[in-house]
Amino acid sequence: MQLPAFAHITEVGPRDGLQNEPRFMPTEDKVRLIEALAASGLREIEVTSFTHPSWIPNLADAEEVVRATRHLPVSAYALIPNKRGMERAQRAGIKGMTFVFSATDGHNRRNLNRSTEDSLVEILDLHAAAGADGLLRRISLSTVFGCPFEGDVPEARIHAIVARLVEGGCERIGLCDTIGVADPVQVFRLSQGLIARFPGIVFELHLHNTRGCALANTLAGLQAGIVHFDTAIGGLGGCPYAPGATGNVATEDVVSMLEAMGVRTGIDQAALTASDRHLAQWRGAPLDSAVWRVAQRCASPETTPSGA
Amino acid sequence: MQLPAFAHITEVGPRDGLQNEPRFMPTEDKVRLIEALAASGLREIEVTSFTHPSWIPNLADAEEVVRATRHLPVSAYALIPNKRGMERAQRAGIKGMTFVFSATDGHNRRNLNRSTEDSLVEILDLHAAAGADGLLRRISLSTVFGCPFEGDVPEARIHAIVARLVEGGCERIGLCDTIGVADPVQVFRLSQGLIARFPGIVFELHLHNTRGCALANTLAGLQAGIVHFDTAIGGLGGCPYAPGATGNVATEDVVSMLEAMGVRTGIDQAALTASDRHLAQWRGAPLDSAVWRVAQRCASPETTPSGA
Repeated sequence: MQLPAFAHITEVGPRDGLQNEPRFMPTEDKVRLIEALAASGLREIEVTSFTHPSWIPNLADAEEVVRATRHLPVSAYALIPNKRGMERAQRAGIKGMTFVFSATDGHNRRNLNRSTEDSLVEILDLHAAAGADGLLRRISLSTVFGCPFEGDVPEARIHAIVARLVEGGCERIGLCDTIGVADPVQVFRLSQGLIARFPGIVFELHLHNTRGCALANTLAGLQAGIVHFDTAIGGLGGCPYAPGATGNVATEDVVSMLEAMGVRTGIDQAALTASDRHLAQWRGAPLDSAVWRVAQRCASPETTPSGA
Repeated sequence: MQLPAFAHITEVGPRDGLQNEPRFMPTEDKVRLIEALAASGLREIEVTSFTHPSWIPNLADAEEVVRATRHLPVSAYALIPNKRGMERAQRAGIKGMTFVFSATDGHNRRNLNRSTEDSLVEILDLHAAAGADGLLRRISLSTVFGCPFEGDVPEARIHAIVARLVEGGCERIGLCDTIGVADPVQVFRLSQGLIARFPGIVFELHLHNTRGCALANTLAGLQAGIVHFDTAIGGLGGCPYAPGATGNVATEDVVSMLEAMGVRTGIDQAALTASDRHLAQWRGAPLDSAVWRVAQRCASPETTPSGA
């Protein structure tokens, strides 16, 4: 089993996670969380989203969060859904922009109120403008592995969209399993195909753990040559209306597996637990992270009588 | 990514799961659960354990469970820790025996009150006697990937124990990640090494999901050539004293991933939900299964505004 020596983690909990929480996290708590994440060694953090506040009230304080975390030694990214969001983000002084749209029209229309094609054209313009302004840039392509409205997504469609992005100058492209339906064979095949066809492009995996496959998909991605992963502290994300629904794959679970396999991440696992503590305390509910659950267990070793 | 066309699942929930529940499941509920599992297409089920009832009161009805499920079209196994347990199991008329001991002395002493060597010698005798009686047999070797008392377990120790088992006539040997500390690279390396060294022996993986890696470990095992897996409906198992502690990898999660990858299991996923329902109802608490949690969510498709 050939694995890379190092993998890069982009923390998306403060954005993809907190936007889905049932209540607003006060700005000062967000800043403390982001500070704790930075202290654990994470060097890329998606700190907020410049979506219209009426859509995502939980992140209505995007400007304040960007300003209050600008001193940290991290590449701070914000999600940018459109031109207006980009203008707000620039005024706030963000360093990095994650441009998002969906591979399927059905999801893109509900999410961004236009077709995939229309978003693609707009985002290529915004991406070019951000580059001219010297900003860090990446693309997050949603519903790559399946769509809640259209079902299966043909690989050819992803290849065609990626080709357009690459022609348009995009160099970091995230493959998002938005609803958590990918399986390892699918992840391996698509990742391997894209890496072979588009050398020099950094492909990233953004996995949700809906069916429990996110770590297996991470492993499959690594084997295909992916070395960039989006993760969220505490497994934040998912549906706020469904208790127990799972969100992004947990940062601490990914880091734990990678480090156990000898794939370095540069992240201090013990320090991640500080973020977990802060988050669990604010949330008042369990986190969706296997590593966090283990940490809650009694410290003493236990055995199962006559168990295997 | 080369995967096998078919994988065999041995359901261990009624044994490794129920023994850890905080309360006794009435015998008639156990029988109903086992019937539902059989109806889903599972063809091997570990239905109980012939450990002394004072150790595992939850399975004190082992004889009754065996008798009441004997009519089912499955190979019913029971866990056998020693000679006395085997005698009880034979009187009850069990078809298959899972002989258990630990790869580490520390775990074996607490579990079976003797050294690994002493258990090995006894179990080879019992295994031979069971063969002479025409019974189905398999070995479950605990703490293969790590021990709560001894920590890391050298691969050479596992190879040496397996060599003794193979010399003694054992043909099915389970590699148990008893406390859920294995990582995919470790699973792949050990499995591949054993399969290469002992051709003709069926190696099985018995994985716990403590750190969330069980499906990734399943994938690694498949890639190494493992095609037999122990799983437990609802992710039963683990520590009864720690809410949220995770147990065996959930049958429905493994089957879901395997079938999605095109690895056939012969198991009807929809029918597994009948077992889940029965179990969750009796338990009155959530099951530790990602697939079960998805099933609890609203049936309508959902989207995350401006999420990726």
